Amino acid sequence: MSEQRIVRPTPISGFPEWTPQIRSTEQRWLDHIRAGFERYGFASVETPSVESLEALTSKGETSQEVYTLHRLQADPADDTDARLGLHFDLTVPLARYVAQHFNDLVFPFKRYQMQRVWRGERPQEGRFREFTQCDIDVINIDQVPLHFDAELPRIVHEVLTGLGIPAWTISLNNRKVLQGFYEGLGIGDPVAVIRAVDKLHKIGEDGVAAILTERAGLAAEQVKGCLELARIKGADSSVADEIAGLGVGSALLDEGLAELRYVLDELADLPAGSVVADMSIARGLDYYTGTVYEAAFDDDPGFGSICAGGRYEDLAGQFIRRRLPGVGISIGLTRIFAKLVAEGRVAEGRMCPTDVLVAVPSAERRGEALDTAARLRERGFNTEVYHQAAKIGKQVQYASRKGIPFVWFPPFEDGGPHEVKDLASGEQAEADPAVWTR
Amino acid sequence: MSEQRIVRPTPISGFPEWTPQIRSTEQRWLDHIRAGFERYGFASVETPSVESLEALTSKGETSQEVYTLHRLQADPADDTDARLGLHFDLTVPLARYVAQHFNDLVFPFKRYQMQRVWRGERPQEGRFREFTQCDIDVINIDQVPLHFDAELPRIVHEVLTGLGIPAWTISLNNRKVLQGFYEGLGIGDPVAVIRAVDKLHKIGEDGVAAILTERAGLAAEQVKGCLELARIKGADSSVADEIAGLGVGSALLDEGLAELRYVLDELADLPAGSVVADMSIARGLDYYTGTVYEAAFDDDPGFGSICAGGRYEDLAGQFIRRRLPGVGISIGLTRIFAKLVAEGRVAEGRMCPTDVLVAVPSAERRGEALDTAARLRERGFNTEVYHQAAKIGKQVQYASRKGIPFVWFPPFEDGGPHEVKDLASGEQAEADPAVWTR
Repeated sequence: MSEQRIVRPTPISGFPEWTPQIRSTEQRWLDHIRAGFERYGFASVETPSVESLEALTSKGETSQEVYTLHRLQADPADDTDARLGLHFDLTVPLARYVAQHFNDLVFPFKRYQMQRVWRGERPQEGRFREFTQCDIDVINIDQVPLHFDAELPRIVHEVLTGLGIPAWTISLNNRKVLQGFYEGLGIGDPVAVIRAVDKLHKIGEDGVAAILTERAGLAAEQVKGCLELARIKGADSSVADEIAGLGVGSALLDEGLAELRYVLDELADLPAGSVVADMSIARGLDYYTGTVYEAAFDDDPGFGSICAGGRYEDLAGQFIRRRLPGVGISIGLTRIFAKLVAEGRVAEGRMCPTDVLVAVPSAERRGEALDTAARLRERGFNTEVYHQAAKIGKQVQYASRKGIPFVWFPPFEDGGPHEVKDLASGEQAEADPAVWTR
Repeated sequence: MSEQRIVRPTPISGFPEWTPQIRSTEQRWLDHIRAGFERYGFASVETPSVESLEALTSKGETSQEVYTLHRLQADPADDTDARLGLHFDLTVPLARYVAQHFNDLVFPFKRYQMQRVWRGERPQEGRFREFTQCDIDVINIDQVPLHFDAELPRIVHEVLTGLGIPAWTISLNNRKVLQGFYEGLGIGDPVAVIRAVDKLHKIGEDGVAAILTERAGLAAEQVKGCLELARIKGADSSVADEIAGLGVGSALLDEGLAELRYVLDELADLPAGSVVADMSIARGLDYYTGTVYEAAFDDDPGFGSICAGGRYEDLAGQFIRRRLPGVGISIGLTRIFAKLVAEGRVAEGRMCPTDVLVAVPSAERRGEALDTAARLRERGFNTEVYHQAAKIGKQVQYASRKGIPFVWFPPFEDGGPHEVKDLASGEQAEADPAVWTR
């Protein structure tokens, strides 16, 4: 061994990494999500990991969390690289992509994007600094049919169902309902109220009431109305009747209620309770203008949203002078996956994808083993040949340690039979590589 | 439209990005490569995009090309992030991974890794600063069977064949042959000769001879011998006899020739000329100790290697006091793909994955269209429902522009027939969503 200094290999906080068994499950999840998105006709897009800083900060909001790149040996006078930052979400890249490739795209443009994103969080906060998001968005010129507001939670419902994760609920709301209701109450700055109500789950009704009274200057009746609305929740479109029943009216509220009703009616065939209208879901971002989504685990609502999204009126105004509204939803893959891994609630996959290990009876008969493996591979089985001639017990042990389900024994002499051993049952039987199935 | 300032969306040099059609082909390639790796039992590993700078520079070689990360709003006194850099290959991460998870892995550890890597190249050089590599490596404790030296080019051959790219050749050599031969010639510093011979394709025989004479101080006979060896090339193990026939001898040379013969014999069943032993292939890196690989396009050898690798004795000595030799090969996916895209030699995929667009006959019959789509999805067809009620011609046009092959017409009235139109042939016929196949 060389006498070089040892650099202790340690995990970097906020950058998750998995063993092969866990990675295999993560890959199954990613394949499943991708297939779910494609089943509805969404096309894959990948963008570079970086955007120009100008693009990343063009909305001015999250500049604090951006990682910028610098060449280790850069001339300090040369700041070309300092103009690049890792993307912190997949929305800014989508906006830039749609603007840049505008003439090559067919609208409505339906894309999915499953990529890593980075946030320059301080390491001690224990938050992810690199994580994978799975986004779908529908972008159109001038207007996006409401149909998609219902389709997106349907897709997410289908996709999450297939992952076998603990029970969750998709909550939805409509910003027009909130804003229209507050306007109907005579409130001048509905956005301030939305921001306050967004804190409801953290600070409770008294906390929200205090903000509304003291900071937003609302009258007691107005505060009461806001809190009454926030308490309304329901799994079907009768929720819209309940809101209308509060006796507040405005044109925007009517528009919002009609949209909410439409979306809930479209989703009425989903299992009861999987999608719930919840007037306390506000989504803080100014960005959203209509339907908003937020999903959380039923047994751990405090964990926060596992997917989120909504409808926006202006995707890419900072990049192109076209009105490009859209509706999108993002699954926080790493957030969900890492939580369940930490809680031991993710079934580990196999350590390797091998279906069959072909044993090598002796050095002389390695050719036979290689031929057998080639035949099995042609038939779709992932197949390894044991890497050397060794005692059969050792070869079987290797398969067992790697979680390989079958060990194949080619003939020990010309004309002899092939045999295959099922390591789970221990059974061993003659088999023909041309027709064998597991 | 808002009057905000427009940030012109422009590509960032060195960071490739594709339209959905090209991305769809890239994804097909990635799926194909992954399936090829798994067919031989290699397990997926992904590592974070970053490593500690200490780890990245622990071999001291490529520090110039590393991108380090900085938080945009970081306190200058806080340099925690400056200790992180994006990985510039997948070998350092593999070494760190194997050392860190040593006790959780079963050896020989066979992993594949398909990830983006970053190089802090200056933008004007027109080189990739972000690209995807597809690596397979076999790592074992103390020794790696020679079997794998032959298996890796076989896998690469199989994988590249399936991509339908222009003709290429995998060249291989063995560092022991070179080093043993040079030792047999009485050369004291064989590594200096290897470095010079590695430049042969760039500077020609005269250039190499000049370096060997002037810088390495070789005698004329020694230079002649080195160049004679470098001219030897051949597709089968007779190449080893040819080298032996040059009359130079050393124990290391014999060992190298035996290995070379073994690997070529194991690959003898591949189509003639697909793998060629080439004594001018040296691979500059000190890292390699035995078999080395390099593949190039036959019609553009000057483009350089499209995949490369070899055998190394010490993967992770900087991280763990265990002898962990290995053999690996890396496919330069982005290098290959971007070249062929630029040359118009990559068949564009579809703009979206949709197999069937279900038309909406009228707003009233949207439910019928949604039901039909659900049935088709259940049967494995990627299916979109047209997003609103519109003239049928407009709906068909949308499918046509998006490259969707089939348009499905649900009954225009209860009990009416379903029909499906094949846009390629223009044929339209009655069909049953429960049994239809494309």
